Amino acid sequence: MPADADDSPCSISEGQGSLDEFSLIKRFFVRPEIGAGAWPSSSIGDDCAILTIGAVKIAVTADMMALGTHFLDDADPYTVGKKALAVNLSDLAAAGASPKAFFLSIALPEADPVWLKGFSEGLFEAAERFHCPLRGGDTTKAASVNGLPGKTCISICAMGEVEGDSYMTRGGAKPGDDIWVSGTPGDAYAALGSIWGQFEVPVNDFSYFKARMDTPTPRVELGQKLKSVATACCDISDGLVGDLGHILERSKVSAILYWKDFPRSEQMKRLPEKVQRRCVLSGGDDYELLFTAPKNKRAQIENLNEGGAVKVTRIGEIAPAAEPLKVLDQDGKSIELSKSFNHFA
Amino acid sequence: MPADADDSPCSISEGQGSLDEFSLIKRFFVRPEIGAGAWPSSSIGDDCAILTIGAVKIAVTADMMALGTHFLDDADPYTVGKKALAVNLSDLAAAGASPKAFFLSIALPEADPVWLKGFSEGLFEAAERFHCPLRGGDTTKAASVNGLPGKTCISICAMGEVEGDSYMTRGGAKPGDDIWVSGTPGDAYAALGSIWGQFEVPVNDFSYFKARMDTPTPRVELGQKLKSVATACCDISDGLVGDLGHILERSKVSAILYWKDFPRSEQMKRLPEKVQRRCVLSGGDDYELLFTAPKNKRAQIENLNEGGAVKVTRIGEIAPAAEPLKVLDQDGKSIELSKSFNHFA
Repeated sequence: MPADADDSPCSISEGQGSLDEFSLIKRFFVRPEIGAGAWPSSSIGDDCAILTIGAVKIAVTADMMALGTHFLDDADPYTVGKKALAVNLSDLAAAGASPKAFFLSIALPEADPVWLKGFSEGLFEAAERFHCPLRGGDTTKAASVNGLPGKTCISICAMGEVEGDSYMTRGGAKPGDDIWVSGTPGDAYAALGSIWGQFEVPVNDFSYFKARMDTPTPRVELGQKLKSVATACCDISDGLVGDLGHILERSKVSAILYWKDFPRSEQMKRLPEKVQRRCVLSGGDDYELLFTAPKNKRAQIENLNEGGAVKVTRIGEIAPAAEPLKVLDQDGKSIELSKSFNHFA
Repeated sequence: MPADADDSPCSISEGQGSLDEFSLIKRFFVRPEIGAGAWPSSSIGDDCAILTIGAVKIAVTADMMALGTHFLDDADPYTVGKKALAVNLSDLAAAGASPKAFFLSIALPEADPVWLKGFSEGLFEAAERFHCPLRGGDTTKAASVNGLPGKTCISICAMGEVEGDSYMTRGGAKPGDDIWVSGTPGDAYAALGSIWGQFEVPVNDFSYFKARMDTPTPRVELGQKLKSVATACCDISDGLVGDLGHILERSKVSAILYWKDFPRSEQMKRLPEKVQRRCVLSGGDDYELLFTAPKNKRAQIENLNEGGAVKVTRIGEIAPAAEPLKVLDQDGKSIELSKSFNHFA
């Protein structure tokens, strides 16, 4: 997600070393199962937790975002509200769940009615579009720092319904499966990287990239259609290759990606090849779906491109775990991968 | 909840006026029902939302807390972790729901392993005690303010199971019902008010009060027992009279409270009468249950005092809506009420 340049890549230093987000969770927040009547969860480490409540399964996800870290300080409040819910709905989409309710907790430095009006309008536009009502939450004051107002912090917990056992996780990809992606990943990072001064984009293309960063479309309908055909799925929030890494790890497999097959927007194609690779392969914040499916589902998946609101493209295949993850260029040579965007890396 | 003195009472100024928490929610976050397949919610404005998922009902609550607002900056991390979950479990207790899962989102200025170890130990002590496992969440970096590290912000969304239609809300109190409270409310505020320099408490009693503030016990088992007898219930987070006000408003009734009947700890009884009234009537942060029940349930409720871990005491009765809310002293004279603690008041 966008962060201002000072905070990027959100490294949190710990003495001499540093603790990334996943190590931190593993070290402090993973505990033995409590049992004793708690709702079982069948997908730890996925975009959503899938909780079993008697005969019903629900998908739950939680995301926290702050102005000054995930959003620029002066971000349009409408955009902030819309995106804050969208990134949670994207997690539900990755599970193939249908959004049903969300809870909003927000810490505010002040009750600015102009900001709140814009924020709530963006939030509810996404809520109405995806039939996902606000069902509760909390408002509080952001803690001040040395007398200066604290930054707005938004925390959303979104829930969706799962039909029977028909949901997707990051586990389940098998050697020989195709790897697919929706939309044109990399566009969001083209905006962010240019804001950060890492590269330049043509003036006329910036607004396209910025809109892709500011108003991602959670692929909720696509997730619904994929849940019966995909073997594994996640959304791309931290970068395509990085998020694919989570699928590979959970599924205990590897992958080969073919750079020439990657879908790229017309605007992306106008950027230098090196910048394209940076944006598409390891840019974050796309909120497209990355999924795997058996080869015999190709026709069924390609059919989605007819009626679907978003195109899906085959970009590679799953390999046995013993192989290293490779991205091959058009000449079959390996492309060197830069480190994927990771909050605490 | 405790706030440092500068922020108290968390007033958020809006130009010439000010916007309290409830006005803010009403103005910006209450919208017409979306319908179209979303899970219905049957308790808007209660401690929990009660969501109906097919044949199943669940209770969901969300609370956000920050160091420097809800906790002192140097609060013991173990205490912070334990209380952060406890206040959410208290909301589930007020609905009579049994805790089943929670989600934690946390913004941290740095990955301090000493702080995280203490925090997670406190958090999981409460989780294990109440059989409520952590099922997911998010970790991120707290946004810095003018280059200074932002404050730790903790957001928890907790969920519980509701048995059939057997749950409690703030609505349902009827004229003639008794008003009951658990434990000895006011103790937490005795610590907070003395930290804020509003009054003094005997040195030997401070640690008792501070423990009541730092480690409230969510009345989960009591909530389970009450759900079949109480007509309305809430927990006391913002002050007894203020929280009773929410029951009165939602139930469209009024109340008379008898000061002489209020349960007070031995330590509370040693404070000046005026301080006692301030703490007991309008001090926040107790996390005791305040509930109403028909008079013919008295014996059944008093029986809870035999086997229960916490005493319940009858402190008044529900009156018709036309009457003003009154607290009578031992001579039958009205006690003037100070404004209850309210985050944004």
